[in-house]
Amino acid sequence: MPDLVLHIGNKNYSSWSFRPWIALEAAGIPFTEHLVPFDFPAGNPAFRDLSPTGRVPVLHHGDVRVWESLAIIEYVADLFPGAGLWPRDIARRATARAISMEMLSGFRALRGACPMNIRRPRREIDLPDGVADDVARITAIWREALARSGGPFLFGAFSAADAMYAPVVNRFETYGLTADETALAYMERMKAHPAWRKWEAAARAEPWIVPEDEA
Amino acid sequence: MPDLVLHIGNKNYSSWSFRPWIALEAAGIPFTEHLVPFDFPAGNPAFRDLSPTGRVPVLHHGDVRVWESLAIIEYVADLFPGAGLWPRDIARRATARAISMEMLSGFRALRGACPMNIRRPRREIDLPDGVADDVARITAIWREALARSGGPFLFGAFSAADAMYAPVVNRFETYGLTADETALAYMERMKAHPAWRKWEAAARAEPWIVPEDEA
Ligand SMILES: N[C@@H](CCC(=O)N[C@@H](CS)C(=O)NCC(=O)O)C(=O)O
Ligand SMILES: N[C@@H](CCC(=O)N[C@@H](CS)C(=O)NCC(=O)O)C(=O)O
Repeated sequence: MPDLVLHIGNKNYSSWSFRPWIALEAAGIPFTEHLVPFDFPAGNPAFRDLSPTGRVPVLHHGDVRVWESLAIIEYVADLFPGAGLWPRDIARRATARAISMEMLSGFRALRGACPMNIRRPRREIDLPDGVADDVARITAIWREALARSGGPFLFGAFSAADAMYAPVVNRFETYGLTADETALAYMERMKAHPAWRKWEAAARAEPWIVPEDEA
Repeated sequence: MPDLVLHIGNKNYSSWSFRPWIALEAAGIPFTEHLVPFDFPAGNPAFRDLSPTGRVPVLHHGDVRVWESLAIIEYVADLFPGAGLWPRDIARRATARAISMEMLSGFRALRGACPMNIRRPRREIDLPDGVADDVARITAIWREALARSGGPFLFGAFSAADAMYAPVVNRFETYGLTADETALAYMERMKAHPAWRKWEAAARAEPWIVPEDEA
């Protein structure tokens, strides 16, 4: 099998890149990473040569190109059905996909106001309309999944759903968005995961600053 | 197995409802439909009792609740692996999922300016920034998929990807958005599909008007 090559943006800022990266890393899937730094929010013209959307992340696997963070995870789950990227139970898998797709399609108020920024020291900001609703819905999602599974992650073992919410863990932390104890404890477990720590260390070591993402 | 009950909004306007509905109908999956009409764009308070997001579509299957249009399709594909909802080939399936997720997460300029409206007579409108880019990208997606598969649908037989783009076929048609012959021919094949015609006839017979969706 040819190498899986995952093209990503800056680790400090590229929330969509973080999702498949931590999913693959936590599942122990072997892959090569190729980081294309951008220093402006509209990406890097080089993305155009890598992906038909001009966006990262994108996975190259021989001749195959897979774009969209969650489609990359699905493709790798198809390649490695034993890796546990999704819950085995069909109904739990449906819930994991539903909340992953809520993340993909929604929470735009939160995503717009509070960009992921791994290095950012914790500091609260004034929040526009809609962010509180997003925070409440995400907290409800986490509480319900953890109550059912018993943790430590949303569906027990670390899965694609945790990967899809990883950038939100950073946002909740750095913008001080929650006081919910179940959420805070889940966030601590996420931040203690070896895959998280590896991404975080690399993000902290990056030289690039994107002013528009420094909220 | 308990009945699959698909809760949907008005057929004339509810683009997200149309997607899993036409996927299931075209694949010959037996399901019961429950239509909850809304006459304002923010939905219907009754949606709250049906789905944790307060949005339609949502699928009830015994105790299982699946929300998000594409997660519903994935769940049904897991239940009926032989139904052909996704292409069989792993790489083609990855492309089908990638373009389905582009639809789920993007094309917001088009979605905002040109609401799906099955009954609407064809009439062009002034288009805000961004719509032309969305139309160009969607046209490229269709052309590339049809060139590879040879048609008649994006991946040969009708699949989840066609279902995800079904509301866009209506938008391209009714707002006069394309002159591309490959796109127009694909749209004709979509509109001739028996599942499309069944949805369309029901939409035309509906009494409800949502002024905000009459662009
Ligand atoms: N829905 C896409 C979003 C990808 C995305 O927006 N990526 C950003 C970086 S985090 C990007 O490439 N931006 C450059 C641009 O939009 O030009 C996914 O899930 O992969
Ligand atoms: N991402 C969701 C979108 C669902 C959605 O926005 N549905 C609309 C009807 S087409 C709705 O329920 N709107 C009511 C509301 O937002 O309150 C999906 O794919 O199912």
